[in-house]
Amino acid sequence: MMEIVDFRVRPPAKGFLESKIYAVAENRKRYTQKLGWPLVVSAAEQSMELFLSEMEEAGITTGVAIGRTTATLGTIENADVADVVARHGDRLVGVGSADSANLKAAFAAIDEIIAMGLKAVNLEPGVSAVPMRADDRRLYPIYAKCEAAGLPVVIMTGGGAGPDLSYNDPAALDRMLADFPTLKVVSAHGGWPYVHEILGVAFRRENLYLCPDMYLGPLPGTADYLAAANGFLSERFLFGTAYPFCPMKPYTDWFMAQGLSDTALERVMGANAKTLLSLQ
Amino acid sequence: MMEIVDFRVRPPAKGFLESKIYAVAENRKRYTQKLGWPLVVSAAEQSMELFLSEMEEAGITTGVAIGRTTATLGTIENADVADVVARHGDRLVGVGSADSANLKAAFAAIDEIIAMGLKAVNLEPGVSAVPMRADDRRLYPIYAKCEAAGLPVVIMTGGGAGPDLSYNDPAALDRMLADFPTLKVVSAHGGWPYVHEILGVAFRRENLYLCPDMYLGPLPGTADYLAAANGFLSERFLFGTAYPFCPMKPYTDWFMAQGLSDTALERVMGANAKTLLSLQ
Amino acid sequence: MMEIVDFRVRPPAKGFLESKIYAVAENRKRYTQKLGWPLVVSAAEQSMELFLSEMEEAGITTGVAIGRTTATLGTIENADVADVVARHGDRLVGVGSADSANLKAAFAAIDEIIAMGLKAVNLEPGVSAVPMRADDRRLYPIYAKCEAAGLPVVIMTGGGAGPDLSYNDPAALDRMLADFPTLKVVSAHGGWPYVHEILGVAFRRENLYLCPDMYLGPLPGTADYLAAANGFLSERFLFGTAYPFCPMKPYTDWFMAQGLSDTALERVMGANAKTLLSLQ
Repeated sequence: MMEIVDFRVRPPAKGFLESKIYAVAENRKRYTQKLGWPLVVSAAEQSMELFLSEMEEAGITTGVAIGRTTATLGTIENADVADVVARHGDRLVGVGSADSANLKAAFAAIDEIIAMGLKAVNLEPGVSAVPMRADDRRLYPIYAKCEAAGLPVVIMTGGGAGPDLSYNDPAALDRMLADFPTLKVVSAHGGWPYVHEILGVAFRRENLYLCPDMYLGPLPGTADYLAAANGFLSERFLFGTAYPFCPMKPYTDWFMAQGLSDTALERVMGANAKTLLSLQ
Repeated sequence: MMEIVDFRVRPPAKGFLESKIYAVAENRKRYTQKLGWPLVVSAAEQSMELFLSEMEEAGITTGVAIGRTTATLGTIENADVADVVARHGDRLVGVGSADSANLKAAFAAIDEIIAMGLKAVNLEPGVSAVPMRADDRRLYPIYAKCEAAGLPVVIMTGGGAGPDLSYNDPAALDRMLADFPTLKVVSAHGGWPYVHEILGVAFRRENLYLCPDMYLGPLPGTADYLAAANGFLSERFLFGTAYPFCPMKPYTDWFMAQGLSDTALERVMGANAKTLLSLQ
Repeated sequence: MMEIVDFRVRPPAKGFLESKIYAVAENRKRYTQKLGWPLVVSAAEQSMELFLSEMEEAGITTGVAIGRTTATLGTIENADVADVVARHGDRLVGVGSADSANLKAAFAAIDEIIAMGLKAVNLEPGVSAVPMRADDRRLYPIYAKCEAAGLPVVIMTGGGAGPDLSYNDPAALDRMLADFPTLKVVSAHGGWPYVHEILGVAFRRENLYLCPDMYLGPLPGTADYLAAANGFLSERFLFGTAYPFCPMKPYTDWFMAQGLSDTALERVMGANAKTLLSLQ
């Protein structure tokens, strides 16, 4: 049995329920429908029990529960992430978050993340109080602290990651990756829709990992992403459902039927995430 | 029998004949040939009669005759558009135009468009006397007036829509769409060649309609456009031949053989345009 | 038997051996492996004899040996290019180079290139001492001198052509092509990964030639490039192995099996290069 790590979930518990994903159910449903997936029952019912049984059904062994600190999409405290993970330690690992627009608070959050045993730092500078791109100088102290601590950064650069599309510009990410060559960086939403360009950056910068998650499926660029996952990017591509946007079993079944080689599949579905987050 | 609305035609009559498309025949023919289509007989002969019979042959029930006010591609007066449409009211509807680079004239043109019963306002800021991108502040009063009047805007953002490619930048359009959320905007030429990016904007902004017209066919990105037309964009994708660049029957036959679902085809070929322009 | 011109080779001889491609063998091998090709024996052994027999095996009749003057990838003197070409006049033609960041030296290099009978001028402004994009005003005197002399320019705008991805921005190239309409410009690495966009520029500017070379194969965008090579770009697409990054026979065999029409293949594999460089 293959171990499957879902690199992007927001389980229906505690602070997660107050973030926009759950609080504005219509918005979440609209996304799921535009993507052509059936609605997610456990999300509608806000049931952790159902969530865990949907994971089970999908064959997902570990979910990466990702917090957030944003101005427009809500906030999930690191303590809440740690608490949910503590209660489901066999099924979840946690990624904390820091406020991109408040350096002092971000530094404190990173210390907290380390103390709580969370595995990485999630940043969403495009939807912070002061929208920024990945190469904004105000983020550089945060990157430097994470690099020094050996903590990977997850950064939303794709989809609706800012007031306009340019907040996803892969060139901004390229500059930052060059300036912090030992910082491991995951692009959440995988730079979509700049598909060719982000793959070009990934070809060039070996510290970049892609998790296109919900932007795979019926959307343009999917074949390009998957060809990369099967080729030069097989050790840096991460499977993720973006739960509760995509339903776990249908999405996982679809993904696994896309023709990736056994080697690529084993890496993408789990091994890459385990290495990146130092899971055993 | 399916109703077919061709969202972009410039019939061979009156002011249309003085615009660059007809006046510089060599240029028009070069485009048609680069796109791999046979030359358009009715355009060469500048014959309205032939044009109408080519429409008939192609099964096109309604053509949207689009005027223009530009510095480099010529001007077709709103009165000329209205006059051509009046003489062929069963086959044509009209879209007027306004000068992107002259606010006072643009305001007058919009009033004229409303008075004449034209259905939308065509803007081509990239080829105006002062080339501008879609998010230029000088265009904002024009957008505001159209939004207030409930008039859709057709804006050339694709192909040769400016001195260089950056005038097609989908991020500029994204900003404008966010700032005028109830303004319905058609991207003429569909943002080509920024195919993934414009589809990303369309996924995000539900007030954007795409009409890639002549940039579909043997050109890169066609499969992506058509997959979107068949999926999340089926209610906001518009069929158009860009006549006289593409010949109506061969282009229409080709388009209808691309494997769109019956539902998508019915929307894209006509229903979307009828709803957008409030045709009955 | 079809004549095959390989538009981009760096033979293992003289100054070529001191440039980064040969001097940092690990780097070269990493690229070859990421691209999925077997390592190149003649490069590892730095053997001209083996190089010539690999050309023979691949059916490559003429190699275009391209010099370079860069800050980060090394320099190959025009005299060295001319010397290698002189010793293998039946198999190689030469393209010289000029320093993008030193106008006086660049002017002297262009005079030298003409005097030595080299066929074009290679510029790599993104990796010069002062990284620049293709539309940098400081390059305009160089372009003007080449245009006046009827010398084509080869410019690296693709792959790792600068500190970040934006140095490959096709809009910068578009502006330059518009400003020098009779200058023939080859984009080495073909604008990759901005695939749709560079093809859009090529559709629009008939003085642009593309040589995506090593960025064809398992990488995203390959199908788009090849469709263009088979269509509107068949007279301006150039085959090139980027030797020693790709091995000549496997790459050539792969390329020729991609389904290009006979006409397109004959142009792309040789006729275009011969016309462009005025070879007989």
